[in-house]
Amino acid sequence: MVTRVATAFRSITESAHPAIWIALRPETEALAEAQEIDRRVAAGAHLPLAGLVAAVKDNIDVAGLPTTAGARSYAYEPAADATAVARLRAAGAVVIGKTNLDQFATGLVGTRSPFGAVPNAFSAQHISGGSSSGSAVSVALGQVDFALGTDTAGSGRVPAALNGIVGVKPTRGLIPATGVVPACRSLDCVTVFARRLDLARLVAELLSGPDEQDPLARATPPPVIRQSFPGDTLPDHERSSGGGERGSGDTSSVIMQTFPGESLHDHEQGGGLPRWAGVLRVAVPTAEHLEGLAEGWAQRFAVVVDELRRTGAQIVEVDIAPLLEAATLLYGGAFVAERTAAVGDHLAAHADLIGADLDPTVAGIINAGRDITAVQVFHDLEKLDRLGQAGRRLFENVDALLTPTTTWHPTLEEVAADPVGANSRMGRFTNFANLLDLASLAVPAGAVNGLPFGVMFSGPAFSDQRLAQLASRIGADDIDLLVVGAHLSGQPLNGDLVRAGGSLVGPVTTASSYRLYALSTTPPKPGLVRDISGKSVIGEVWRLPAAGFGAFVAALPRPMVIGKVDLDDGTQVSGFLCEPAALEGATEITPHGGWLSYLNALKGH
Amino acid sequence: MVTRVATAFRSITESAHPAIWIALRPETEALAEAQEIDRRVAAGAHLPLAGLVAAVKDNIDVAGLPTTAGARSYAYEPAADATAVARLRAAGAVVIGKTNLDQFATGLVGTRSPFGAVPNAFSAQHISGGSSSGSAVSVALGQVDFALGTDTAGSGRVPAALNGIVGVKPTRGLIPATGVVPACRSLDCVTVFARRLDLARLVAELLSGPDEQDPLARATPPPVIRQSFPGDTLPDHERSSGGGERGSGDTSSVIMQTFPGESLHDHEQGGGLPRWAGVLRVAVPTAEHLEGLAEGWAQRFAVVVDELRRTGAQIVEVDIAPLLEAATLLYGGAFVAERTAAVGDHLAAHADLIGADLDPTVAGIINAGRDITAVQVFHDLEKLDRLGQAGRRLFENVDALLTPTTTWHPTLEEVAADPVGANSRMGRFTNFANLLDLASLAVPAGAVNGLPFGVMFSGPAFSDQRLAQLASRIGADDIDLLVVGAHLSGQPLNGDLVRAGGSLVGPVTTASSYRLYALSTTPPKPGLVRDISGKSVIGEVWRLPAAGFGAFVAALPRPMVIGKVDLDDGTQVSGFLCEPAALEGATEITPHGGWLSYLNALKGH
Repeated sequence: MVTRVATAFRSITESAHPAIWIALRPETEALAEAQEIDRRVAAGAHLPLAGLVAAVKDNIDVAGLPTTAGARSYAYEPAADATAVARLRAAGAVVIGKTNLDQFATGLVGTRSPFGAVPNAFSAQHISGGSSSGSAVSVALGQVDFALGTDTAGSGRVPAALNGIVGVKPTRGLIPATGVVPACRSLDCVTVFARRLDLARLVAELLSGPDEQDPLARATPPPVIRQSFPGDTLPDHERSSGGGERGSGDTSSVIMQTFPGESLHDHEQGGGLPRWAGVLRVAVPTAEHLEGLAEGWAQRFAVVVDELRRTGAQIVEVDIAPLLEAATLLYGGAFVAERTAAVGDHLAAHADLIGADLDPTVAGIINAGRDITAVQVFHDLEKLDRLGQAGRRLFENVDALLTPTTTWHPTLEEVAADPVGANSRMGRFTNFANLLDLASLAVPAGAVNGLPFGVMFSGPAFSDQRLAQLASRIGADDIDLLVVGAHLSGQPLNGDLVRAGGSLVGPVTTASSYRLYALSTTPPKPGLVRDISGKSVIGEVWRLPAAGFGAFVAALPRPMVIGKVDLDDGTQVSGFLCEPAALEGATEITPHGGWLSYLNALKGH
Repeated sequence: MVTRVATAFRSITESAHPAIWIALRPETEALAEAQEIDRRVAAGAHLPLAGLVAAVKDNIDVAGLPTTAGARSYAYEPAADATAVARLRAAGAVVIGKTNLDQFATGLVGTRSPFGAVPNAFSAQHISGGSSSGSAVSVALGQVDFALGTDTAGSGRVPAALNGIVGVKPTRGLIPATGVVPACRSLDCVTVFARRLDLARLVAELLSGPDEQDPLARATPPPVIRQSFPGDTLPDHERSSGGGERGSGDTSSVIMQTFPGESLHDHEQGGGLPRWAGVLRVAVPTAEHLEGLAEGWAQRFAVVVDELRRTGAQIVEVDIAPLLEAATLLYGGAFVAERTAAVGDHLAAHADLIGADLDPTVAGIINAGRDITAVQVFHDLEKLDRLGQAGRRLFENVDALLTPTTTWHPTLEEVAADPVGANSRMGRFTNFANLLDLASLAVPAGAVNGLPFGVMFSGPAFSDQRLAQLASRIGADDIDLLVVGAHLSGQPLNGDLVRAGGSLVGPVTTASSYRLYALSTTPPKPGLVRDISGKSVIGEVWRLPAAGFGAFVAALPRPMVIGKVDLDDGTQVSGFLCEPAALEGATEITPHGGWLSYLNALKGH
């Protein structure tokens, strides 16, 4: 844990992305906390997040650091950790700082902040997406293992997609909002970013649970008994297993247990037969609603859909017009006034700071809420109820809705030219989720034009677990690759991995049976060689779709080769090695421990 | 059914309460419908409400009659029955007309209507309560067997209490609102009035169920499985029965089934023990919140609480301040604008009718919603969420809250003098229920100063059934009494029954083994005598608390006696008979069939 924390601080210091962080904890304090975690683990404590470093979006309270919500004029010193933060600390993670965001969590771009725009992890010209910009990019760059964000219109999902990571937006209320600056109070969710789905889900589960202080906190309802009576037509296997479990030989009534969010369709009767017994059904938007995506995005989405279909899922096109209509209520309707209710008084008291500490686009949106009437709210709530009903009908016949996470990836310049329009285009598939009480999960799904592409599974409240199961299907044939040199994050050839659809899994260490050489190639590359009298070498694991991995290996120039490498955790992974011939004239750099340390040492000369 | 419909129309024609009805169906049409019901029942159809006549509040659509919501200028011809009306008709009831109400269901008084104020069923000087004034009074007078009302602030409960009948306000959404003119859309409930709790509950159950057209329709959730794991402390009987049911001998996990609204406390763990195993716990307000009730009401309430305590329930005082604070949001907060959203356009378009067709008090309330901002709505919704949480905590430890239904029973004059203030005092215990998503049930509980007194059981959403079970406890020792003469509804001595805490059960017919005489008493009274060569005689059954019944019998002057009377349905009931000596000089009037027909015949001479 101590090593991990030290590495995190070093990677932040050396990072080319200074706008990610609004505040960092003193390193000594974080190290002391890490030491204490190590001590407790050694003493046998069960800390499921021990060894992991976390970032927290700066609209969520961390005791000891100010909360700014992206505005210095708004800053306050919280008396306590937000409930979510307290829980991740209790689970053994070490929080190292607070990350940048679109001010007051109002935006999907990551540029609306007096602390600076956060550029994309893979392109300095492109936006990171927001509002949880700093959290997403710090995870994508491997600075931290996971990060907390928030999501009202898509802030926990859009930046995940644009930076090639996972964004879990749980069902509203599962993670309590105590200690979170409200954006649009009734719709806000705390979210989790991680590079891996399993870690993101684990963290989200650990942060969930009742909270006396949050009136909107909810728990996943317990499983229900569905009891059938004689005369009901039931599939034979259910009738017999039901009767058998009860051990009575009485088949006149059968108890079926269904878990929340689990699809009920296997049990449901339609003309006496289950409607689609055992087959997963996933909805996708009709072609009409996939128009206007960035170049190559619709094609890439079609590839993901095909991949899911090949796993046996049935794909059905649905008309998502009611969802899109509901989405208009977020920025085009009465809910704008809920933002005004949250921070309107602060804007009014500091009108002189608009254009300086207060972002003019954000201020414009929030101040517009003052002109809305209460009557309009109730008209919009009625409309939302009607659309919510239509939305529920849509989900009655499918297990989830699959969409691209966002619609394009603008440059910083494009957003500056049209801040509201650019933002608005990005939220097409995310804006409706919280209004309609959906759970939603954004996962990376390859790359388009050298930048990450992501898709999103959405389903009814409490379907969180089902969404994760579906999402794991489309990553089922991914391949992990160890890189130790020019393909590391921030190094010259890293873009090749991204273009192949890769995403960073995280830093790793090889088993202590390797030697590392600086080859006489251009650009300079390291050569990794297995030798039982060797040492451990530091690298990164990247995850690539099978096809992307194949193309990447096929394009690899000699003397580089891909073979199997042992890691220090006992696992084996595909990784970079080199031909023996390449070692002629090479310098052994094993004592440096890794390629980056060697490069730093060179600079030092 | 035909006879019942004809009786209903006759009682309406002869009634001294012309303001009850806004529209009646043509009698011939209702009779034809009754004939058809009779034919279907004879043919074996299962129609659970066959034989019953219903009234419908005039903000609920009945095809063939205009819906006015209490304003002629608002009237429209509905294309179809409201869902609730269609369901009660499908169950065999015959709707005979539309009843008066506080305009746009805005009020608890029953005086805010251009169709006239509806006086109380037991006192021409006192208000009926509202807004479902006509529905409640028509039931109280026995004109109809049950009636539909609506309830936002208490409109389905306050008039029940003031007229000595039962008012069921189900959990919001159980009875769909399709075809109901909204008062405050997100809070409105369709309610049921009847003289008997069992009938009111039956009707409410028959009207409940999903409705594709109402986005706020909800179903009572299915029972849940609560699974416990090793290490949990469980009461022994649960451990053994749970294990036994599964028939496996494995007691490592126990499945407990809990029904919605059922109290969970028997299963819950607090320091390893259930908190109050098996004992019903009922909350009552602290003395502070029972201050300012009408004279004698707090004492009468204390008697009811004692009665409930004697049935074995544990009574706990709770601070209902959070509920009362939530209540202020209804008329003192943003929800006023939801009324404006519903009918504000109509008021604006007909401003010239205010003071004529449009009630000035109602218009004043609804127009005030125009000045409220959207920001205020979101502040109030946040406040409501906090108070709702406090309210849920209150219900965590008890099965229900018992309160008086209302706080006083003003005269028509008192309401005219202070329309808003008088109304506001009446809603203390009813205003919060729909805001906090409670189920609520108003039942008669004797009389104070000669007018009905009522109490109310309230509990969390879906606790409807539990509330009915509790309410049946306080009526468990009531006694039914047959009256055949001067104590009949509308007759000179009827007030004695009301003062004794009595409420009308309904009209009945004796077995065909009685003779009826006109005695030579002052006032003139009938003498009922059993004689197997006699005929059937018409009367009414009234229900009295045991103590009231005792006092009533003790005060009865000779020659009247109370004995047992056979009814034509084979049951036996306590009822008025007379001493044989009284028949001297009496006139046999058996051929008239009953006392009222005899009196009418006398008038005819």
